[in-house]
Amino acid sequence: MKARGILLVISGFAGTGKGTLVSALLEKYDNYALSVSATTRSPRPGEVDGVHYFFKSQEEFRAMIQADELIEYAQYVDNFYGTPRAYVEQKLSEGKDVILEIEMQGALKIKERFPDTLLLFVVPPDADTLQSRLAGRGTETADVIKKRLRRAVEETAYISQYDYLVVNDKIDVCVEEMHAIIQSEHFRVDRNLDFVETLRKDMEKFR
Amino acid sequence: MKARGILLVISGFAGTGKGTLVSALLEKYDNYALSVSATTRSPRPGEVDGVHYFFKSQEEFRAMIQADELIEYAQYVDNFYGTPRAYVEQKLSEGKDVILEIEMQGALKIKERFPDTLLLFVVPPDADTLQSRLAGRGTETADVIKKRLRRAVEETAYISQYDYLVVNDKIDVCVEEMHAIIQSEHFRVDRNLDFVETLRKDMEKFR
Repeated sequence: MKARGILLVISGFAGTGKGTLVSALLEKYDNYALSVSATTRSPRPGEVDGVHYFFKSQEEFRAMIQADELIEYAQYVDNFYGTPRAYVEQKLSEGKDVILEIEMQGALKIKERFPDTLLLFVVPPDADTLQSRLAGRGTETADVIKKRLRRAVEETAYISQYDYLVVNDKIDVCVEEMHAIIQSEHFRVDRNLDFVETLRKDMEKFR
Repeated sequence: MKARGILLVISGFAGTGKGTLVSALLEKYDNYALSVSATTRSPRPGEVDGVHYFFKSQEEFRAMIQADELIEYAQYVDNFYGTPRAYVEQKLSEGKDVILEIEMQGALKIKERFPDTLLLFVVPPDADTLQSRLAGRGTETADVIKKRLRRAVEETAYISQYDYLVVNDKIDVCVEEMHAIIQSEHFRVDRNLDFVETLRKDMEKFR
């Protein structure tokens, strides 16, 4: 019943620990694959092509868009970022649940185009916890924190378009909840219509 | 996030071990309550009112129908059977996930009336396993077994209207899968809109 993997998007406000949760999922369970993005920006020291990103020239990237080889893409400043279809398709057909860590707007576009995508949103227990987590990082100025919190307020309006909501209070608990949610999705009837059809044909002999 | 329980219907062909699975869920986990049906049939020896059934007179049962006190009911031969709303509501508000063991037609009616009902269908690994399980009971004649298998063939057409499908191959594995599915449902965004609204208001201070 579990042949094909699930395409899943994990989103959340900056500061909810989304990255840590995704790393924990990948480390703890062997059924996940992280989608590798394509980008036109230059590799930073230590970044490996095909591992951290697929590095492309502007021409190559535009050719990928033309050939519909990206399931979503966006432009930030002068660079393009996108999700190559081939890698995602390969991992899904291997039975891997493929994680996309993308922005809310991209997530909703993907869901529109591929309705069986699982959208999972991670929230902090409450607003104060989010603020103190962002401040606790010690890496951002007060202005940047303020900007991130304002963005989080705006994103709150779109949570209702997600499928599942998890509260990241304790990391270990949250990772297990996420894993249970994703694995349970494999049992949805509409993800198993082939199995239902096989069973139906198999049962016909009793008619 | 988990205040209110989920109303869930567990259905399956005769002979798939549905009853055993429900008993195991009730015994193994403390978050479930089994709905107690109302009936106009007479109690059998050992049956306790309020435990096995709520025993009602024909007049009492008709009065319950009139007062919309049953979320579904059906008549078999001369007797009525129904699901009292009050008991289900009480258990749901206590946070219990309430299990209804009802027929497919009743299940689809309940889903129509209460769209957040979770419909779970239990199937055997394949047709031959179903047949040998039914024969293995040793309690039914060949004719009765044939009738049950024919009914199962017909029910197969409705599986696609259920939410989740589990294969009862090994009881213990299947019980854990069912539990994970039901518990994961508590994290669906549309079951947590109150929480989302509270968070949204809480976040407004950052605007």
